[in-house]
Amino acid sequence: MRNLKITLSYDGSEFSGWQVQPDRPSVQGTLADAWKRITGESVLPQGSGRTDAGVHARAQVASLSSESPIPTLNIVVALNDILPPAIRVMSVEDVAPDFHARRSAKEKTYRYRIYRGDICPPFLARYVYHHPYPLDEARMVQAASTVVGEHDFTSFAAVDPERRDQEGDRNNIRTIRSSRWERADEELVYEVRGNGFLHHMVRNLVGAFLLVGKGTLDAADLVRILHSKNRSENPGATAPASGLCLISVEY
Amino acid sequence: MRNLKITLSYDGSEFSGWQVQPDRPSVQGTLADAWKRITGESVLPQGSGRTDAGVHARAQVASLSSESPIPTLNIVVALNDILPPAIRVMSVEDVAPDFHARRSAKEKTYRYRIYRGDICPPFLARYVYHHPYPLDEARMVQAASTVVGEHDFTSFAAVDPERRDQEGDRNNIRTIRSSRWERADEELVYEVRGNGFLHHMVRNLVGAFLLVGKGTLDAADLVRILHSKNRSENPGATAPASGLCLISVEY
Repeated sequence: MRNLKITLSYDGSEFSGWQVQPDRPSVQGTLADAWKRITGESVLPQGSGRTDAGVHARAQVASLSSESPIPTLNIVVALNDILPPAIRVMSVEDVAPDFHARRSAKEKTYRYRIYRGDICPPFLARYVYHHPYPLDEARMVQAASTVVGEHDFTSFAAVDPERRDQEGDRNNIRTIRSSRWERADEELVYEVRGNGFLHHMVRNLVGAFLLVGKGTLDAADLVRILHSKNRSENPGATAPASGLCLISVEY
Repeated sequence: MRNLKITLSYDGSEFSGWQVQPDRPSVQGTLADAWKRITGESVLPQGSGRTDAGVHARAQVASLSSESPIPTLNIVVALNDILPPAIRVMSVEDVAPDFHARRSAKEKTYRYRIYRGDICPPFLARYVYHHPYPLDEARMVQAASTVVGEHDFTSFAAVDPERRDQEGDRNNIRTIRSSRWERADEELVYEVRGNGFLHHMVRNLVGAFLLVGKGTLDAADLVRILHSKNRSENPGATAPASGLCLISVEY
C-alpha cells in the first residue's frame, strides 16, 4: 500500500467547494472520480482542509492510500488528462504511511484579494472581491498584526455547530504567525499564515478589517472582539468567497 | 440625437461571440438588453468587428445612436450595474455623428497567448491556448514579419462564403502593420496590428506559425501560401479561440 501526497491548484468558481456533496460538483468528488477512472480504486482523497464554494487554491494538498503501481509522474499526466482545466494536479509524491494531508499540516497561507479600481476587469472578476468604495488602507495595514499570536478565534468563526472548524478538532484556538495587508497596484491584498483556520475565519477577519478601513472599528476593537469569543460581538460581514485563495500548506 | 462610443472589456468564455444570436448569450445582445433597461431604447450597438465564441476583448469598441440625455459617466455606472461581471464598460464618449465603430476603425491589435508550461494554471486556462509540446520558438519569432504589409489574406481566412470577413466589405486585402512573437515567462505571445482582419485570420495565422515552430513550414512557405490566395494551400489549423484577445481598436 502506498501513501500519496497530491498538490492541486483549482479555480473554485464553478465548484460547490472542496468537500464532496451529492449532486453538486466538488473538487474532492471530481478528483475521486478521476482517480477511480485511472486506477479503478474508490477512495476519497483527504484534503488539508475544506475550501468553500467559490474559494480558490493555488496549492491545496490531498492525501490518499492506493494499491496502484503507476509512477507518480504518470499519475500527474493521467489525472490532468481527465480533470477539467479548472483543476490541475501540480505534483504527486510518495510519502510516509503516517502522512495525512489534514492532520500532518503544520501551517497554511491564505491570500484575499480586493480590487480597488472603479471598474473590475472581467479577467479578474472571479478571483477578487471588487470593493471600490473608500477605505483608510493605512489603518488596515496598521491593524493587521493585531490578530497575530495564539488566540481563541470563536469571534471570527462561522456559527456552525455541525462543523466547528475545518481541521476536525474541537477547540477554536489557533496561532496566527503572520497577518498583513499590502497594496499591489489596483489590489489591496491580505495574506495570513497560521497553524490552522476555523470555518470562514479568513473571510471573517477580512470583513472585520474592512470595518477598520471604513472607520467603524479600530485595532483596540479587534482585540476586544477577539477576547469576547463570541461571533455576535463581531459586526463584520463574511467577505465574499471569490477573493480568497489557499496559497500553500506547509508540512 | 447623440452618437456614443462605448469601450468594452469582456471575458468571452461564456458567450457565443460578439454578434447577437437567437437563444444564445452574445456580448452584443447582452449590451443591447442592458441599454434597453436603462434607456428604454431598442438599439443594436455596432461593434468594431465580430469576435468569435470564446474570444476575449480588452477593449472592443461599439457605437450607437441614442436620444437618452444620461451623462456618459452615469451610463458607465448604470451599464456596469446591469451587465454581468464578464462584461465591463470601460468608458463611454459622445462622438461625432459620422463615427461608426466598424467603418471608422483605422487599426486593430490582437494578442494570442500560448501557455508553454507542462501544467496550465487553472486561473489562466480560459485565456490561453495550452500547448506544452516542442516548438522552435526562434523560428516563429524570425518568421513573424513575413506577413507584414498589404496582402490578400484569403489563405488565412475562414472558408465562409456567407461572411467573407469581419469588416463587411468584399475583398480580402488587408495591411498588417506589425506581427511579432515574444516569449513572456511561460507564455509565447503573438501580437498583430493591422487595418483589418478577416474572419479567423489571427487564429489561422497562429495555426500556420505553429507549423513553422514544428518545422513543417518555413518563412518561404508562408509567402507561398499567402500568394496562393487559397485556404486549402494552408495546412495550418485554426488555433483555439481561448488564446485570442482583441487588445485595442484605433480610430
